Amino acid sequence: MTEQSPDPRMLASRVPSLSGVERAADKVAEILPMTPLLPLDVAGRTIWCKAECLQPVGAFKIRGAWHRLTDLTADDAAAGVVGVSSGNHAQGVAWAAKRLGIRATIVMPSNAPQMKLAATRALGAEVVLYDRVTESRDAVAAELIRERGGVLVHAYGDPWIIEGQGTAGLEARAQMRARGIDGPDRIVACCGGGGLTAGLALACPDAIVTAVEPEGWDDVARSLEAGEILSVRDMRYPTECDALQTPETWPINFAVLQARGVRGVAVTREEVRHAMRVVFERLHLVVEPGGAAALAAVLAGKVEIGDATLVTLSGGNVDPQLYAEILAG
Amino acid sequence: MTEQSPDPRMLASRVPSLSGVERAADKVAEILPMTPLLPLDVAGRTIWCKAECLQPVGAFKIRGAWHRLTDLTADDAAAGVVGVSSGNHAQGVAWAAKRLGIRATIVMPSNAPQMKLAATRALGAEVVLYDRVTESRDAVAAELIRERGGVLVHAYGDPWIIEGQGTAGLEARAQMRARGIDGPDRIVACCGGGGLTAGLALACPDAIVTAVEPEGWDDVARSLEAGEILSVRDMRYPTECDALQTPETWPINFAVLQARGVRGVAVTREEVRHAMRVVFERLHLVVEPGGAAALAAVLAGKVEIGDATLVTLSGGNVDPQLYAEILAG
Repeated sequence: MTEQSPDPRMLASRVPSLSGVERAADKVAEILPMTPLLPLDVAGRTIWCKAECLQPVGAFKIRGAWHRLTDLTADDAAAGVVGVSSGNHAQGVAWAAKRLGIRATIVMPSNAPQMKLAATRALGAEVVLYDRVTESRDAVAAELIRERGGVLVHAYGDPWIIEGQGTAGLEARAQMRARGIDGPDRIVACCGGGGLTAGLALACPDAIVTAVEPEGWDDVARSLEAGEILSVRDMRYPTECDALQTPETWPINFAVLQARGVRGVAVTREEVRHAMRVVFERLHLVVEPGGAAALAAVLAGKVEIGDATLVTLSGGNVDPQLYAEILAG
Repeated sequence: MTEQSPDPRMLASRVPSLSGVERAADKVAEILPMTPLLPLDVAGRTIWCKAECLQPVGAFKIRGAWHRLTDLTADDAAAGVVGVSSGNHAQGVAWAAKRLGIRATIVMPSNAPQMKLAATRALGAEVVLYDRVTESRDAVAAELIRERGGVLVHAYGDPWIIEGQGTAGLEARAQMRARGIDGPDRIVACCGGGGLTAGLALACPDAIVTAVEPEGWDDVARSLEAGEILSVRDMRYPTECDALQTPETWPINFAVLQARGVRGVAVTREEVRHAMRVVFERLHLVVEPGGAAALAAVLAGKVEIGDATLVTLSGGNVDPQLYAEILAG
C-alpha cells in the first residue's frame, strides 16, 4: 500500500444490518437450497449442526459472495472483482462470478490446500499467489486493483459479506421452527476474520454467540477481551485450520462482535481432529479442520450448550491425504 | 426352517403399491426432514445424488422401518420385532423401535462392520449374531420368532419396507420440481435384496431404473436377465459392499423389478472406491462402499445419464480405518 492510499479497513461503505441479512437471505434462497441442520447428541443434549460443507463450493462463503456480487453496479461488475482468500471465499467468489459473467481474480496463499487452488481455477477465476508469512494479502490485492482496476471483495471486512454469511442463521432459525424449536439460543461459529460470526450475530440478535478460533490464531478472542483489535502474535504458528488463519479482524466485524457481546475461545489441534472424526462417524459429513473448530469447542466442553444450540460445520475442503491421516489417527 | 414351516418368502401379505409409497411418504415427512438432493457434474451433465447417508441412522433403511413399525397392530407391537440385517436395516429398525417403545431383536452377521454393530446396540436393540457363510439368516430369525414370538421385519422382502424405501423417490421428485426439473427420468440405485430399487421403481413409474450390485453379488442382475430368481454363486466372494451382500432377492421384490423392466449392472471394487473418493472431494459426504455402488456405475459409464438422473448415495456407515485406506489409496 502506498502512503497515499487510505486504509481500506476504514472504508466500509455502510453498516451491515439485520435487514441486510434478510434481503441477502431472499437472494440466496432463490439459488441455493437450504443446507441441512443435523441434530447431534452431546453429553445428553442435542445440538444442531449447520452442514455448510454441503454448499456447491463446500463452504458457507458462497452466501456472502452471492450477496456481494449480485449487488454490484453495472460498472463495477464490468470492471471485475478481486478477492482475497485462503480458499473457501475464493471458491465462493469464483462461483458467483462465473454464474454472473463477471471476471474474478483471487489472491491466495501459495500454501493453500491443493484442492482449494484447483477448485478455484476450475471455476474460471485467475489465481494470484502470495506468501502467507512474508507478504500482506491486502497489500497484494490493493496493488492488483491499482494496476488493473476491479472491485475488492474482501473475505470478511465487507458489509455484504457479513450479511450474506448471516443468512445461515436465518435458515437455521426457520429449520428449528419447522421442528418446533424456538432458537437458536446459542450460536457457536468457526471464526477466521469474523465475517460469519458477525453475520450470525446480526441474524439472531437474541442468541449468545461464541467465536471459535484455532490455538495461536485467536486474535478475535484476544481482541474482544482487550476491547481493541489485536493481531495474531506469530504468523508462523502451526495450525491445520487454514481457513481460519487470518492475521486480524477488521473494524466493521469487530464493531458488530463487540456490540453483541461475543466471546471467543480457542481450540487445540487434537480437539479439532477429534471433532472431525465425530462428524465422520455420526453425521457422515466431511469437514475440514477449520470447519470443525466450533464443534471442537462444544465437544471439549469449552462452550455451554443451550436448549437450541447452533454449531457451524462451515466447510469441507480438505485434502484426502490429510483427512485419511486424521481419521486413522 | 423346519419342514412344517411355510416358506416365509411366499407369505407377503399384500402387494406394495405407489399409493402405499405415498402414504409412507406422509408418515416419513412427519418425522424426518428431506435428505439433500445434490447436483454432481459427470461428463458434462448433471446428475442428482440423494444423500441418504445423512439420515439419523446413516442410511435410507430408516424409511422402510418407520413405515413398517408404525403400521403394526397393537398386538404385534407388544410382541416386539425381529429384524435381519447386515447393519443399516438393523439401525433403521432399532431407531424406529426405540422411538415407538417396541422391543427389537436384530439378527446380524458376525463380520458386520464394528460401527454398525455398536450403533445398533446403542439404539437399544438386542443383537443376535450368525455366520454369514455357514448359516441362513432367515432360518436364524425364524427360529428366534418360534422361540420368543415377535414379528419379522425383513430387510427387503416386505411390502412396507419396499414402500418405505420408495419415499426417497417421491422426495427426489419434489426436490427436482423445486429446481424446475421434470424428473427423475432415470434412477440408479444401490441394490442388495432389491427393497430400495423396487420402492423407487414404484414411486417413479415413468423412470428407467437400474439396480447396481457389487461384482460377485449381482444375483438380482442375473435373475432379471434369466427371468427367474437366482442365488449368489459364491457366498465367500470378497466385497467391501457389506450392505449389498444378500444371497438372493425375494419374489415380492422380483415381481416389481421384473414388471418395471429394471436392468442390473455390477461394479468392481476399484469402481466403488473411486466413487467414494469423488463423493469425498466433490460432495463432502462420507459414503460406505455399498452406498457408493450406484454412483460407481454412473462414473464407470455403465449406466446412461438422462436429463434428470437420480443416483442413491444410500448409506455412510463405514469403519474409519477402511475409509482412510480407501481415501489414501
